[in-house]
Amino acid sequence: MRATLIHGPRDIRVETVPDPTIVNSTDAIVRVVATCVCGSDLWPYRGFTETTVPRRIGHELVGVVEEIGSDVATIKVGDFVIAPFAISDGSCVHCRHGVHTSCEQGAFWGTSHGGLPVDGGQGQWVRSPLADGTLVALPEMPDESMIASLLTLSDVMGTGHHAALGAGVEPGSTVVVVGDGAVGLSAVIAAKRLGAEQIILMSRHADRQELGRRFGATDVVAERGREGVKIVNEMLGGVGADSVLECVGTKEAMDQAIDTTRPGGRVGYVGAPYGDSELPIRRIFMRNVAIVGGVAPVRQYIEELLPDVLDKTIDPGQVFDLELPLEEIPEAYAAMDERRSIKAMLRP
Amino acid sequence: MRATLIHGPRDIRVETVPDPTIVNSTDAIVRVVATCVCGSDLWPYRGFTETTVPRRIGHELVGVVEEIGSDVATIKVGDFVIAPFAISDGSCVHCRHGVHTSCEQGAFWGTSHGGLPVDGGQGQWVRSPLADGTLVALPEMPDESMIASLLTLSDVMGTGHHAALGAGVEPGSTVVVVGDGAVGLSAVIAAKRLGAEQIILMSRHADRQELGRRFGATDVVAERGREGVKIVNEMLGGVGADSVLECVGTKEAMDQAIDTTRPGGRVGYVGAPYGDSELPIRRIFMRNVAIVGGVAPVRQYIEELLPDVLDKTIDPGQVFDLELPLEEIPEAYAAMDERRSIKAMLRP
Repeated sequence: MRATLIHGPRDIRVETVPDPTIVNSTDAIVRVVATCVCGSDLWPYRGFTETTVPRRIGHELVGVVEEIGSDVATIKVGDFVIAPFAISDGSCVHCRHGVHTSCEQGAFWGTSHGGLPVDGGQGQWVRSPLADGTLVALPEMPDESMIASLLTLSDVMGTGHHAALGAGVEPGSTVVVVGDGAVGLSAVIAAKRLGAEQIILMSRHADRQELGRRFGATDVVAERGREGVKIVNEMLGGVGADSVLECVGTKEAMDQAIDTTRPGGRVGYVGAPYGDSELPIRRIFMRNVAIVGGVAPVRQYIEELLPDVLDKTIDPGQVFDLELPLEEIPEAYAAMDERRSIKAMLRP
Repeated sequence: MRATLIHGPRDIRVETVPDPTIVNSTDAIVRVVATCVCGSDLWPYRGFTETTVPRRIGHELVGVVEEIGSDVATIKVGDFVIAPFAISDGSCVHCRHGVHTSCEQGAFWGTSHGGLPVDGGQGQWVRSPLADGTLVALPEMPDESMIASLLTLSDVMGTGHHAALGAGVEPGSTVVVVGDGAVGLSAVIAAKRLGAEQIILMSRHADRQELGRRFGATDVVAERGREGVKIVNEMLGGVGADSVLECVGTKEAMDQAIDTTRPGGRVGYVGAPYGDSELPIRRIFMRNVAIVGGVAPVRQYIEELLPDVLDKTIDPGQVFDLELPLEEIPEAYAAMDERRSIKAMLRP
């Protein structure tokens, strides 16, 4: 089959690799219907994290089950499935607590599991370990027009939802979203869905501002840093927001988040921490700003969000503004790296 | 009147200072019935924070109202009042959100308010600014035996409760308390009061272990650091605790707290951050450990906790193991500094 490997900074290649087969009795083979590039895939692409040997990449996918192991009980051949970005058994103590990203048997796509390599999502097929725990099957085959929104449930929509839950968004909340990538935009959807009254999106890009407004942002602030904080706080009557959703991962973004949260308010953060981003405890201590979030256990959220996607109450698939065949994935990375695209979908 | 001033490291003196008088129409004059020394008072005492000029000290007190300004509406002459450690108006947006420590007109005892000096709590009388907002009056004059527990509502009991709320303690929770000072011991009471099933107190001192068990600790772990974390996690089946209450403020204590929290669990922290204690964001991100807390808005909690104190459901006054006349306050500081006393009460 054809699958994507990263060889080093700005060196993304689609290559022929062995077809996956059932190895463990809990495996399923999934034909990938759609996959995409994540903001975090750009880290090795940009050389922020090192790539020592060529490796499979990609962790977001939806597809159709083609084969199952003998112990797979709930997933069936022919099911259309959403694969969250983390593999999990669904039964350990952490999964039962809803923290599937900390599963005792967990792994991530493109890494390894139980001593065996795990396929990356950006390919034609994957072997899914722990298929019953990991995959979520739809009740029926979805319409082609639904693919994009369903694909967001494998990561960005669930991650935005995690930020909103962490930040404690509830009906009537005032909300700030820091970050206008696909996660930040999904966080706008999540905040609106949970009943936020005011949603201020911090965004400098016209296309993303526009999409953010369509998703429910009531205000947009283009300024960043101290100036951005000042403007946001003025809009919030000098009080700060009840809930701030930090969807970037840099120190600058976290500083903006903390400084726009009202005393006693909450920062829900999902931006994977990057660089020198230790949390300034004195600043959060004196103002009772809570820091709640982390790597999103999106598996936990798919069942809750899926009905809203299926009945089109929410339409997160709009974050995809570029669709390419898998073979053209180098252009997908380049377009996202150069901010020509918010998020790129690939069709194997 | 006689009041306590700190002149520098280990230099605590009781001196004659001007009697307080009503200055603003919202003031009340309170005769101090009991006051005490806080763990945080030991910071300047030990020279960890600098004392540049002699200054009033102390921020915990209960007393009787002797005089009120013309605009004081709810507090009456003769009321027995609890003074929380922060002065607040009770009406600004932050007070309405229950974060009285961030009051727009707020101040702390022993500092200044509205350009005027504010008395420290360790004296015979205080002028209380914003009396209606700050002070909580009891329905009737309490029995002498209640004074100690009532005094804890001015700080440590409310602070322990804040840690327990921050950590999300609820019926059935597994809890770890890091710190066996008066706040840590109060946090044990708070965790039990909120329904915790298992409460592991990390404590090295026999007298504090004993008091902790009396307050509701089900287990005590004397080890600290990595060894302590290992033992606690073994007691918790390798999972970690739902809720960890960090009541110290050092990097070591926060590390213990984070490392004993289960994925998706919460650290409720109230230890005023000391030294190099920035939060290690990568460790909390990957495990979804929430950090919730800060300087406790104890004013918000007095009305909730007071009935349990009055009917003796809880008896936090047991944290006081030393009682001295105000004139002997240097010995109170020395006893706490040398860990001969958990917490010392002074009677002016």
